[in-house]
Amino acid sequence: MVDLDKILQDGKAIYLAYDHGMEHGPVEFADAEESIDPSYILKIAADGNYTGVILHKGTAEKYYQLLGADERNTLPLIIKLNGKTNIPDLEPYSPMVCAVEEAIELGASAVGYTIYLGSEKESTMFWEFGQVVRGAHKAGIPAIAWVYPRGKWVREKYGSDTDPELVAYGARVALELGADVAKIKYTGDRKSFAHVVKAAGRCKVVLSGGEKTEDPKEFLQVVKDVMAAGGAGVAVGRNVWKAKDPLKVTEDLKKIVFG
Amino acid sequence: MVDLDKILQDGKAIYLAYDHGMEHGPVEFADAEESIDPSYILKIAADGNYTGVILHKGTAEKYYQLLGADERNTLPLIIKLNGKTNIPDLEPYSPMVCAVEEAIELGASAVGYTIYLGSEKESTMFWEFGQVVRGAHKAGIPAIAWVYPRGKWVREKYGSDTDPELVAYGARVALELGADVAKIKYTGDRKSFAHVVKAAGRCKVVLSGGEKTEDPKEFLQVVKDVMAAGGAGVAVGRNVWKAKDPLKVTEDLKKIVFG
Amino acid sequence: MVDLDKILQDGKAIYLAYDHGMEHGPVEFADAEESIDPSYILKIAADGNYTGVILHKGTAEKYYQLLGADERNTLPLIIKLNGKTNIPDLEPYSPMVCAVEEAIELGASAVGYTIYLGSEKESTMFWEFGQVVRGAHKAGIPAIAWVYPRGKWVREKYGSDTDPELVAYGARVALELGADVAKIKYTGDRKSFAHVVKAAGRCKVVLSGGEKTEDPKEFLQVVKDVMAAGGAGVAVGRNVWKAKDPLKVTEDLKKIVFG
Amino acid sequence: MVDLDKILQDGKAIYLAYDHGMEHGPVEFADAEESIDPSYILKIAADGNYTGVILHKGTAEKYYQLLGADERNTLPLIIKLNGKTNIPDLEPYSPMVCAVEEAIELGASAVGYTIYLGSEKESTMFWEFGQVVRGAHKAGIPAIAWVYPRGKWVREKYGSDTDPELVAYGARVALELGADVAKIKYTGDRKSFAHVVKAAGRCKVVLSGGEKTEDPKEFLQVVKDVMAAGGAGVAVGRNVWKAKDPLKVTEDLKKIVFG
Amino acid sequence: MVDLDKILQDGKAIYLAYDHGMEHGPVEFADAEESIDPSYILKIAADGNYTGVILHKGTAEKYYQLLGADERNTLPLIIKLNGKTNIPDLEPYSPMVCAVEEAIELGASAVGYTIYLGSEKESTMFWEFGQVVRGAHKAGIPAIAWVYPRGKWVREKYGSDTDPELVAYGARVALELGADVAKIKYTGDRKSFAHVVKAAGRCKVVLSGGEKTEDPKEFLQVVKDVMAAGGAGVAVGRNVWKAKDPLKVTEDLKKIVFG
Repeated sequence: MVDLDKILQDGKAIYLAYDHGMEHGPVEFADAEESIDPSYILKIAADGNYTGVILHKGTAEKYYQLLGADERNTLPLIIKLNGKTNIPDLEPYSPMVCAVEEAIELGASAVGYTIYLGSEKESTMFWEFGQVVRGAHKAGIPAIAWVYPRGKWVREKYGSDTDPELVAYGARVALELGADVAKIKYTGDRKSFAHVVKAAGRCKVVLSGGEKTEDPKEFLQVVKDVMAAGGAGVAVGRNVWKAKDPLKVTEDLKKIVFG
Repeated sequence: MVDLDKILQDGKAIYLAYDHGMEHGPVEFADAEESIDPSYILKIAADGNYTGVILHKGTAEKYYQLLGADERNTLPLIIKLNGKTNIPDLEPYSPMVCAVEEAIELGASAVGYTIYLGSEKESTMFWEFGQVVRGAHKAGIPAIAWVYPRGKWVREKYGSDTDPELVAYGARVALELGADVAKIKYTGDRKSFAHVVKAAGRCKVVLSGGEKTEDPKEFLQVVKDVMAAGGAGVAVGRNVWKAKDPLKVTEDLKKIVFG
Repeated sequence: MVDLDKILQDGKAIYLAYDHGMEHGPVEFADAEESIDPSYILKIAADGNYTGVILHKGTAEKYYQLLGADERNTLPLIIKLNGKTNIPDLEPYSPMVCAVEEAIELGASAVGYTIYLGSEKESTMFWEFGQVVRGAHKAGIPAIAWVYPRGKWVREKYGSDTDPELVAYGARVALELGADVAKIKYTGDRKSFAHVVKAAGRCKVVLSGGEKTEDPKEFLQVVKDVMAAGGAGVAVGRNVWKAKDPLKVTEDLKKIVFG
Repeated sequence: MVDLDKILQDGKAIYLAYDHGMEHGPVEFADAEESIDPSYILKIAADGNYTGVILHKGTAEKYYQLLGADERNTLPLIIKLNGKTNIPDLEPYSPMVCAVEEAIELGASAVGYTIYLGSEKESTMFWEFGQVVRGAHKAGIPAIAWVYPRGKWVREKYGSDTDPELVAYGARVALELGADVAKIKYTGDRKSFAHVVKAAGRCKVVLSGGEKTEDPKEFLQVVKDVMAAGGAGVAVGRNVWKAKDPLKVTEDLKKIVFG
Repeated sequence: MVDLDKILQDGKAIYLAYDHGMEHGPVEFADAEESIDPSYILKIAADGNYTGVILHKGTAEKYYQLLGADERNTLPLIIKLNGKTNIPDLEPYSPMVCAVEEAIELGASAVGYTIYLGSEKESTMFWEFGQVVRGAHKAGIPAIAWVYPRGKWVREKYGSDTDPELVAYGARVALELGADVAKIKYTGDRKSFAHVVKAAGRCKVVLSGGEKTEDPKEFLQVVKDVMAAGGAGVAVGRNVWKAKDPLKVTEDLKKIVFG
């Protein structure tokens, strides 16, 4: 049985995501200097009682692992298994850099994997995610799918990667491939996001936080809509650690998510 | 010995297929809203006494697995091992997202795999299906081949993917590769379909239901022709769960298939 | 030690080949309707006392395996390990669809593998055939190489795939890669075929029967020349089961091969 | 636990790198003839008390392995696991030529792997380096990442491979992928290099020595800046063994690195 | 420890190479008819007391293996692990057709592998040769690298594949990849070849015999130069078995090599 409770609280989730150093480069930390230090992020995650912190294996091993046992017990680790830089502009594919077993050895309570839906390398990612789900479920931990439509065919056929039908397609694929949680982008309105949640069925849907919004309220409103639409929570990064007061935003988010 | 009886009744088959969420997206459920919910489909399959329900591993684990033991005993599970979206327009190839052993652990009585006959990636699919047959037969369960001619060379050489000689070629390939059942499209007339059945030899042929026909009688006539031509049954999806009364259509189908 | 005697009689061979359903499609059976049924072919092979029948794993499992033990003891099974359709026009490559161990489990006394000499995918086939030879010889059974020069470079450099020097090259490659028997096309005259046989050294050479000749005598004359040139026999298909009287042709062939 | 102390002294490092024969060819030794002989280099490394010597597996086995046990105890071996020539001008990728286990059998205290950041083959290298880190950390030895931005996209997007943001990106990727030490190029000034060191976090940063500078003082100044910026040391090659007095340069370097 | 002595005599080597049937086709035997027969070559090798005979696995199994134990003890077998035809004009790559373990089972005292230095497929060959060295050294037998610069980039950057700096590069790569012996072409003069030998360090260098020279003395002079330059010997083929008196040439060669 997959133990989903470790990364949920009352069935809801608020994850602090921190893989931006790999995906976008340290330039992402430029306007919030402390955020370049994983220890700083881990402190926010611990103090804010996040239901999980999302790291690559390197930061997990060199920072999360060195926390005290108590802190680790309170703050579940989610390891992102694949990653890439944004330098080569190819049809998107993000290779596995950490095995499921390795993630478990590093103390992960769940694993994540990014699928670029519609990419010309979709078949490789489907195959790999199939392996991830199998490994995770054998070990009894959840597999989280980051489902991001991207690539030439998405542009040609849908125009936008937040097209509601496309996002719903991604959520459904997550369900059918065996994901326990799907991390996806907002579709722009509550009604269409409710359809996305429906398409995902028993696969929980969490919002992918995305870029920092100028006005924090704007982001909070999106989270409200996501929850109202049946979403299970949010995976947030920049909207927290680029905020003036990360713990304040955290509290605001938790009020919305946990009610 | 391969146990084909589990997914047959008196040597005949009526399968409820439900992999459309992955293959076509939830847009496929738009004109029959309830059908987006796998529980709804499983209820049809159980109430209609289908000889099998075809799911991807995710829906199998999160829905079929949670049925009661009795329901699972009555309704055999067929797991589709490979899948893809319809977003990238490439030479068709559908990667493995579930291993045979995994399918068996999830309770599958048979496994299915799609071969896009004539695709430029045919060699990869032949190799993979070879592995599927071996794994399935070692475990004593049947391997079902979805054989769909597709791709540039099919268009250039045959024009239509229901060209009788081409469909017969696919049926024959299923036999020679070790499939126990071939799921294929209708050729348009009874005589040519009889040739297809002959080409498949001891590999049973079931009709691939395809898109919902406007008039249900049209579809029922095709099934009649298939059975008259020596077919073993039908794998149906949209013509059932998009129907006004799915169980009524089911009864009509069963009368034709089981006589 | 490799047991070559099981598929030879007095050091000579007459094999009935039946992989045309996969390689060319059932259209190949059009002008000899019964030949679409593997049982019909197996009866010819058994009644004609062939030194081996060549099948893909599917037909082996569903037809040869169901013969009585006596019939199987008398008629050795040779499983073709790789196969492809003739639909996509690519640089030729035929993927493995059956493992050596699987073939042995199905009762094979020998295994065959097609190498498209000179294809741009030659390196993949050389590697795979290397594995086949190793697996077969470990199990003590012979490995047969179908060596067919083909592809863009063969056309450009040799013009014809029966160019004597090219065919001799193929025979030699079979020897050096470890094949026990090479199945190759006729070069057109006895003298050049004797050179082919010499190039193959201790690897036995059997004629690849090819398309049905209009006049049966024409084909019989080729077999005579092959034997006179030092060939070990013939692998025949269409020239037998498309004949008016397959057993009569068989007897004629045996007289030539076994003298 | 990873034993980083074996290749550090007081937390600092000075490595003698000697993989130029593979990467650039023996032409690299032309202006310092003795340097073509690995024994000569090993003598410099031993006499200079380097905290490690970097070799490919061949030179490790045929030279380092033949040193006395005492010498080997004093001079840690770092094996470079991947390598390539500079002949084909392709999107850069350097294949594994030595497994982690093999390196350990040859006496390695650490292993190194080159990642060409931004190359179109980045995903292959990320995957492989993921495996390297896992193997090394399982065995308790450090994994060192050579991180060199290179290829078409680097040229197009950054112009120079020493662009400070790009170098910092590389350092960060090393951290997130699990490297214990990152070997990178100088960014040109102390301030930007301090940013690089910060981006690398708990992954130590050593300077990649690069080409011999005309004036040795120029190189020493760079090392001073690197150390002032928080670097952990230097991996030097040509600036030592192409120097008139390699041990003199070594002493100068050690004064800067160890203070 | 690698046992190099089995394929050396007083530290020197004279190998009879016989893989031309695969690499160039039997056309290579046209002007010396008996040479098409591996038995004939093995007799020359045995009578001439060669320090090794180089065969592909097929000829090893069907000819060398059938020699008496005494003959096999006297004549060491070197198996060429990879091979290809000269038909497709692609960037050169020669796939593995025999595993190291398989070669050892066939009685090999050493294994050989061809690296086409500078080919666009160099990375695959480096990886494979890495595996070969590891397997061979684990079993205690030498790994011999055939290092032949070839392909588009060699032509563009060096013009000739016997460019002295390029040949030296190849010799160095053999050393760094772990080869015990490098088989390379002559650079044209003694001085540059001495540089090649120096670049190879403790990896022994043997001359690749190449095409038959019109005047045998020409070839003998090259061997003299190679030995004077520090070479360890010669791997000869056509210059022996295409000679009028192969054993006479052999004696001449041995006088030069063993002194």
